[in-house]
Order: sequence, then C-alpha cells, then structure tokens
Amino acid sequence: MYRTHTCGELRPENIGKEVILAGWVQRVRDLGAMSFIDLRDRYGITQLVADENTSEEVKKTLEELGREFVIQVTGTVRERSSRNKNIPTGDIEIEISGLKILSPSAVPPFTIQDDTDGGDDLRMKYRYLDLRRNAVRKNLELRAQMAHAVRSFLTANDFIETETPVLIKSTPEGARDFVVPSRMNPGEFYALPQSPQIFKQLLMVAGFDKYFQIVKCFRDEDLRADRQPEFTQIDCEMSFVEQEDVLNTFEGLTKYAFKEVLNVEVDNFPRMPYTTAMEKYGSDKPDIRFEMLLNDLTEQAKGKGFVVFDSAEYIGGVCAKGCAGYSRKQTDELTNWVKRPQIGAKGLVYVKYNEDGSLKSSVDKFYSPEDLKAWAEKLQAEPGDLMLILSGEKQPTINALGELRLEMGNRLGLRKKGTFKPLWVIDFPLLEWDEETKRFFAMHHPFTSPKPEDISLLDSEPGKVRANAYDLVINGVEIGGGSVRIFDSELQAKMFDILGFTPEQAKAQFGFLMNAFKYGAPPHAGIAFGFDRLVSLFAGLDSIRDVIAFPKNNAGRDVMNDSPAPVSKEQLDELHLQLVKKIK
Amino acid sequence: MYRTHTCGELRPENIGKEVILAGWVQRVRDLGAMSFIDLRDRYGITQLVADENTSEEVKKTLEELGREFVIQVTGTVRERSSRNKNIPTGDIEIEISGLKILSPSAVPPFTIQDDTDGGDDLRMKYRYLDLRRNAVRKNLELRAQMAHAVRSFLTANDFIETETPVLIKSTPEGARDFVVPSRMNPGEFYALPQSPQIFKQLLMVAGFDKYFQIVKCFRDEDLRADRQPEFTQIDCEMSFVEQEDVLNTFEGLTKYAFKEVLNVEVDNFPRMPYTTAMEKYGSDKPDIRFEMLLNDLTEQAKGKGFVVFDSAEYIGGVCAKGCAGYSRKQTDELTNWVKRPQIGAKGLVYVKYNEDGSLKSSVDKFYSPEDLKAWAEKLQAEPGDLMLILSGEKQPTINALGELRLEMGNRLGLRKKGTFKPLWVIDFPLLEWDEETKRFFAMHHPFTSPKPEDISLLDSEPGKVRANAYDLVINGVEIGGGSVRIFDSELQAKMFDILGFTPEQAKAQFGFLMNAFKYGAPPHAGIAFGFDRLVSLFAGLDSIRDVIAFPKNNAGRDVMNDSPAPVSKEQLDELHLQLVKKIK
Repeated sequence: MYRTHTCGELRPENIGKEVILAGWVQRVRDLGAMSFIDLRDRYGITQLVADENTSEEVKKTLEELGREFVIQVTGTVRERSSRNKNIPTGDIEIEISGLKILSPSAVPPFTIQDDTDGGDDLRMKYRYLDLRRNAVRKNLELRAQMAHAVRSFLTANDFIETETPVLIKSTPEGARDFVVPSRMNPGEFYALPQSPQIFKQLLMVAGFDKYFQIVKCFRDEDLRADRQPEFTQIDCEMSFVEQEDVLNTFEGLTKYAFKEVLNVEVDNFPRMPYTTAMEKYGSDKPDIRFEMLLNDLTEQAKGKGFVVFDSAEYIGGVCAKGCAGYSRKQTDELTNWVKRPQIGAKGLVYVKYNEDGSLKSSVDKFYSPEDLKAWAEKLQAEPGDLMLILSGEKQPTINALGELRLEMGNRLGLRKKGTFKPLWVIDFPLLEWDEETKRFFAMHHPFTSPKPEDISLLDSEPGKVRANAYDLVINGVEIGGGSVRIFDSELQAKMFDILGFTPEQAKAQFGFLMNAFKYGAPPHAGIAFGFDRLVSLFAGLDSIRDVIAFPKNNAGRDVMNDSPAPVSKEQLDELHLQLVKKIK
Repeated sequence: MYRTHTCGELRPENIGKEVILAGWVQRVRDLGAMSFIDLRDRYGITQLVADENTSEEVKKTLEELGREFVIQVTGTVRERSSRNKNIPTGDIEIEISGLKILSPSAVPPFTIQDDTDGGDDLRMKYRYLDLRRNAVRKNLELRAQMAHAVRSFLTANDFIETETPVLIKSTPEGARDFVVPSRMNPGEFYALPQSPQIFKQLLMVAGFDKYFQIVKCFRDEDLRADRQPEFTQIDCEMSFVEQEDVLNTFEGLTKYAFKEVLNVEVDNFPRMPYTTAMEKYGSDKPDIRFEMLLNDLTEQAKGKGFVVFDSAEYIGGVCAKGCAGYSRKQTDELTNWVKRPQIGAKGLVYVKYNEDGSLKSSVDKFYSPEDLKAWAEKLQAEPGDLMLILSGEKQPTINALGELRLEMGNRLGLRKKGTFKPLWVIDFPLLEWDEETKRFFAMHHPFTSPKPEDISLLDSEPGKVRANAYDLVINGVEIGGGSVRIFDSELQAKMFDILGFTPEQAKAQFGFLMNAFKYGAPPHAGIAFGFDRLVSLFAGLDSIRDVIAFPKNNAGRDVMNDSPAPVSKEQLDELHLQLVKKIK
C-alpha cells in the first residue's frame, strides 16, 4: 500500500495515529536541529517533521530530497506547535519514522507554485508540470465538476446522452473541415465534425425526443488567442418544442450550473431582440452588467456645419458616468484608442457635462450649449458625466461605439468578474449578405427556421427575414447559440437554393437529411454551448486555454509533444497520397 | 405548445382531462363507426379514438393519415372499454377533438416495429428510421444510462473526468493510426488517438491522482463484424496504487454498474493467472459461466501405438456432461466442426462413458478400457459423459480445445445470457515474440511494468517476463484491460530498446514522456474498458453495432450519408496533398 491517507486529509482527531503518505516535495526547510517538508498531492499539503528523534537512515534520505521528488513517508500524526491556519491540515504534522524516495526529480524548469516564474512557452512545453500548479489544476477540476452538473441536470430532464460519429462526411458549408483520408476507401475522406448538427436532427427524426452530448468539435481555422482547433460543445436538441420551451429549458440548465458549481443565484434572463442589442449595445453579445447604452444622435447633431458629422450616416454616443473630470491626456488617450485599427473610428468627439451644469466639448465651435443639452438629454447624461460620440457609416460606427462602451466599462470597473448577467439575444436575421461572393450565407446555419410570419419575405427581401434563432450571452461572451430547425423538406430545399446550392449539390451533401424529413419529422429545435468558454467564464479567466488540459498554440501545435509531425512514406502510400512538395 | 403530455404518461387519474399529445402514427384501424390510432413517441403509445361524436373536420384529416405521420392531437382522456394490459397507458384512451398533421410520411421502406421486415442493409441506410424501433432505441438508452452510472461512481470516488486531445501525435507502435493533415503545418499530420494512454500517464505525472474519461478512440484496421473504426473507451488511471488497488476499484465500478443498471448482483471476481486461463480454458478470456475445463492427457495417452497421439506435442480433452448418448451423426458433425479452418484441428477423438460404466471410443483399437478410465479420471468424467480429445502442437491444440469447449457450452445451453460471471485474468506475459518480424512486441503496450521479481529476466529470457497486467473478462468477452505502468525513465528506455526502438526513435516518439518521468513521476496504473462491448454485454447483444447510434459497415462506410467521400481539389491543394492516382 502506497498510502493510508492523502495529503489533505489528516486532522486533530488523527493525532497519535501511524500513517503512510505519498506525494511530491513542495519544499524542504532545514533548520539544523529540525527539518520540515511540505508534502503535496492533489488533495492538499501536509507538513512532515524530522527532529532529534529521527533515525539516521531517514536523515540521510532527507538530505537527498529536492523539490518535486516523489516520496513515501511513514510516521505518526502529532499536534503542531504553531498552527497554520491557511491550510486544512494546519493543526497537525507527521513525525517521520520512515522515508522512501519513489521517484527523484531534476530541478524543474519553473517553480511549481501559484505564482510561478515560468513564462508561457516554457509552461506549455512542460504542460505536465504546469498542471501540477494548484491554480491550473483547479480549472480542470472545475471543468469536470461543471460537466457533471450539466449531465445531471439534462439526464434528470429526460435528455438521452448519445454519441454521434467523429468520422463523418465533409460539407462545404461553414468553416473549413479537418479531413481524414480513408485507407479502405482510397481517394475518399472523412471529415471531423464542426458540430453534430445533422446527426442530432436525425436523432429527432428518429424519435429520441431529447438529445444531448458533451462532444469534441473541430474547425480548421486560423487560430486566434481564444480559438482552438478542437473544442468542446454541450450539444442539445429537443422535439415538439417552440423557441420559448428551449429558452426556458436551457435557462434552467444555466441557473442550475451557476447554483450547483458556484453557489450563485442569477436573475431571470432577459430576452433582447438582435436589433436592440446592436442599436443599444453595439454588439450582438451585449455585456449587460452595466448600462451606458448607445444612443443615436444623428438627428440632433447633423446640419450645424460640422462637416464630419454632416457627412456621417450615423452619429451616436455613450455617457460615461462621473468622467467629466477627465484630463486632456485622458481624452487624447481615448481618442487614440478608438483610432486603433481594431476599433477603426476616425476620431472621437467628447462633451464634458461639468458638475456646475456647464458643457464643454471638443466641437464647441459648431454647437451651442443648447445643442449639447439636447445631446445630454438623449444620452441621459447628468452633471459630472462625460459624453463620448462617434460618427461615420452606421454599422462600423455602432460596432466601434460598442467597443468603446466595453472599454469604458473596463476603465470604470463596471465589468466585475464575480457578477454574472446572462441574457438571450433573439430574432437574429436568417441570412447575411456577403459582398465578396455576392451571395447570402446562413447567419446561424442552413437548417435554421425563418420566423413563420417572415417566410413570405424569403423571395422578395431575403435579407429582412428573421430567424427563430437565439444566443445565450453572459457578460459580453457568446456562450451558446441555437435555433428552431426547418423540418419540412421543401422549405429546406428552398433554403439551400437561397444559399446558392444547385439542387444536385444540395442532394449530394444533404440528401439524406431531406430524405429523412419525408418520413415524418417532428418540429424540433436545439442549442449548443461552447463548453470551454463556459468553464473559463465560471473560472474567471479570459482565455479558454487554461481550462483545456493539453491545448494547442496559435499555430495549432502541441509544443509539448511536438505535433503535428511528418508521417512515413509508407503511411502516405497506404493512403494513396503524396505531398505536393517536399516541405521541411 | 405542442403537447401537454407524452404518449407514455396518461393514467386513469387523468380521466376527464383535456390534453394535447404529439407523436408518430404507429397504426390506424378504421372499424367503420369508430377509428383507432396508436400514437407513439419515445415514452410510449397512447390510443386515440374517433367515433360518431367526432367532428367531420377531424374525420377528414383522419382519412389522410398513414403510418409514421407526425400529428398533434387535442382530446379528452377517457376510460378504455377493453383494457390493454400490455402497455402502461392501457387503461385510458383519448377522444379526439382536434387533429393536425405536423409532418406527413411517405411509406417507410420497412415497418417500424420490434420485428421489422427490413434487412440489415436497408435498416443501415435508413438508420434514422431503424432507431425509431423500440428495440434499437432501448439499446441507446441503456448506453446513456450506463455512461451515467459509470460517471457517478467514478466521480464519487474522486476521479476527475479530463478531456485529452483528439488531434495528437502519430506513433508507429500498435495498430494503424488515422492521420489528419495539418493545413497550418504543411506536410505534417496529426493522428487520432488509439487511446489517450500517454496523456493519462502525463496527467498522473501532473498529480491528477485519479483520472477518467469516456472517450472516442480510433483504429484504422480492417474491420471485422465486431470492430468499428471509432469506438468508445472508459479510460482510467490512478496514482500511488498497486495492482490490487486497481482491481478492487474497478471491480467496484463493474458491480455498481450491474446493480444500478440491471439490478444484478455479481459475485466477487476470481483472479486467474494467464497460464491457468490458457491451460484450463484454452483462452485468455475464459467464459467461467460453466466448467468443462481442459485437461492435459499427454502423459496418459502417449505411447500406445496410436500414431496421431504419439506424434503430438500435446493431447488434451474436455468432458461434455451427459452427452454419452450422442449419435454417430452428432459426433461426426463435431468432428467436422473442429476441422473448420477457424478451429484448425486435424480430427477429433471421442470417448463415450456410457451410463452402464462401459467405455466406447473412436480409438478402441489402441486403448484398453483401463487406459480410457485413466482419461476419464483426468477429465473428471462420469458415466453418461462424453470426452472430446484433440491433439497436435500445444498452443493451437489448446486454442482449438478452448473453442470446442465454448461450442459445447453453447450446445448444452450453459452460456446463459442473463448470467454474468466476471473475472480478472492476471500475470500476462510482458512480451510476445513475432516470428515474422523476429522481434518482441509488447503484449499490452510499451508502458506496462514487468513484475519486479521478473525484471532480472529482461536481459536473459525476455519471453518469460510476466507483466503487472490484467484483463477484465465477462462471459468470455474481454471487457477491459490495463496494467501497472513503468514510471522510471531508465526502465522505460530499456523497454523501448527491447522492443527494437533505437534510442533516437524512442526519443523522437516518446521523448516527452521519458522526460516527464525525470521530474518526479508517481507510481501509477490504469485500465480501459471497451464501452461498446460492455453495453452490448449488458444489452444481451452479440454485436456492438446495435449499441452505436450511427455505426459504420465493414468497409468503414456510413451508408446512410455515403461517407467517406471525395473532397475537392481546392481542399487538397490547401493541404499540400494530391492523390497518387485517380480512383473512382
């Protein structure tokens, strides 16, 4: 037996007991007459002591120990003279009677403690050591706990967890697929799923009624900081439901997870139409932890001779509470901030609504105090506030204002980490026009149902058709999205037509789905949550990388095991493939 | 709202209530004055009735209905005149007041009922219809229930469910990998995991202590009936444990699943050394639901002038209880059975131990009754039994006898489906010699620890070294397997050397693992269960295909969506790949 207890388990009631512990040496303190070892495992830290009563043999082994050695220790639990209140085992210590090195350790490339001295690259390369740090492992424990809570809720609500295939058919729609050459079917390829969308719809056709799966999905996209080539979804689908049924069910799931895992009660989720989100928050994923709404000043601000505004399609602003005292340096800095390419504004107009009721703006030349008062009224500004105004083409300006709003929220400390404000964004447009390819794309995906009252617009004004689609947004992060699905093969065929598929292409790619709809398809709807993002939100992290045990870097590489890697010519031959040119 | 209740929910206490149901038309019976519809969903079947009080509008819609139409019905729950005891809703029926077709159905290619008229191919092509059949869907529900039970047990026992990557590094050891070309790293490939072996060991190095995952794994092998290119494992690993700890933990898990899911109590699992399994059952996965042990007759049967036996390395037999009365036809048939290429015996010798105590064999010319009595004693045969004897080279003969034992078990009804007899097979050889390549292969995998007492044999007689490896076998099926792992980088390097890796190859492939062992690796051990097989065992099925929602056929194809499929030249160009020759 390697241990009788873990390193987080012993308490005063164990005093006098002979125990065996095993774990990693967190640190050794040699105080001459006495030596102390902090022994660590996943469950905690226990202090080991050697003193004048300790055998020579043990003392000799003690001298060999270094950080991260794996040892097994036998000893007696005794009361600690100076209690350590910071750890649950702080009342006791172990008087060492036997000590064995199970596995020595070289000096680790960085220290294994909460505030490590290892940089990102080093920690990724030695990920197995980084995962030893409490702060990192806790995130993975949280992840497991969340997955368990999600499964408990959905299972209790009659959802059947069903595994769908990983080796599936490649589809040209959506992001780029990872493909897998088939040796048994030379010249043919599987694809890895971007989502189990079609399979879950087929499960509804199959009468499964309620399906879920916590499942790996894959996208071969150029990676940003917050993207991974493989990611995990909580994927769900329900039959005989309308949009409200879905929203209520998954609002229930989300509240359950918050309560179960974080012991946080969240309010009922507001439902906000997409157009409101865009106009009032400048984003389809509004952070509603704070107000500072966007307001349209076009009518008020145009036609007074300020050419920048007069030539603008849209003028809009936000009101930063209590910021009237911003210095010139601060407003200049904000101006530079909005001009950054990611934000793309040409400039920033500000109006200070001073505490004394006077107004001071960067465009005083063109606007009277009465003009500015009208703006203040529109922006609900009061004495002491700072109004920030952008102008230009409508959509980009709204987007930039949305970003500015978030930035001000950050600066004013309005985006508190422990506060969670979920909402549903609903009534998304069904289609998005792509200027480059001159065609419509499905905003959600090609299986999303138009709102019944908008179906008549499909032929005349497809861009105006709204979808029965919805996103779950928490604190400005899109956590989940879904839709009511088309379950009629003719409407589905029409959608493919609008999306530019020829009937032949639609049949080749999705024929089996449209065929399935011919044998009695139930009305159905679903949703998928980005599990990595949900966990990182719960963990209070900004990136998903720290909630993934073995993440890849921005080039899609695992730097720990140096993959991807070349394969042998024999392997390629078996797959009837060759590299186009010798690379590397 | 599409429904107020499911089709499995209504009971006499609901009589008089107005309800809305939705589901599939199982069948329509038109009896002139009255019509009956069986309405089906996942939860059950409810009878709907139209009679003289039903509106003309409803009656008109009724006439359009066919099997598998999806309908929504409004009506009042009433008592049924003739109770149907076969279904839980059999006391009530719904008097239809409103009827709406949600989705019509073409005539399905086979009937959606337990005993369908659809052949295998048709049912695979229309898998979404096959899954509507209770018998098939129940298997998937069982699967979900089992996964939930496994997770509950392991989570309650401090295991952290941790997701490991699907896009990993290709390794030459083991079966063939599926590979995934990396667009961002041209000329390089990921592999899909055959198991998360190395990652789970790294999680132990990381101090996770107890890990599990229910995870998809992949093998690009030529498929047999019971193999799929993607399959699911319950993958587990523990630190600071010895073999007995692992066996006890997972014996606990298995018992819990049997109790929780099937309400079956299974006995404690015997531990049987590999050599005993081979010698007494002719198999490393013995079916211990019945005895009929193999016994060695070499000593007893040699040297009596029967040249077949005299020239054999091994002579062994089994005793079929109560079969002394077998006719010539039956023994001839058994002889033909053992001669089949899959069994490979050259012939069969039988001895009938008649009820009157006399002995009659197919080799009476060479053996006296006393000789045969000695065999009977060895085989523990009694009057009324039939002894079946094979001879030849030792290993193939033992294998053939093992198969014969199972066949006789089948014929005698000794392999009962509802009976479950798990056992641990332990003490496997560490290495297997491959005559073709003239090298040793790891019997389990290269990370398996030799038994400490056998390490000294590694250099001198590697073939004799036993491993701390174990298999969980239930009813003759290998359900799981695992081992205590090497956690010492030097011993690991030695293993790679024995397996024919050069130090450079070992470093290139597994350098990061051996490196990880240098920073304090805990002793660890683990196991993986074949989840598909475990479910099919619980479901009483012979194939894993019916416990997989969307399985592939023996050519690795999904015939429902016709994949794998060719991809576009543009996709290949992006991956810097080309097909070696135009195929298809």
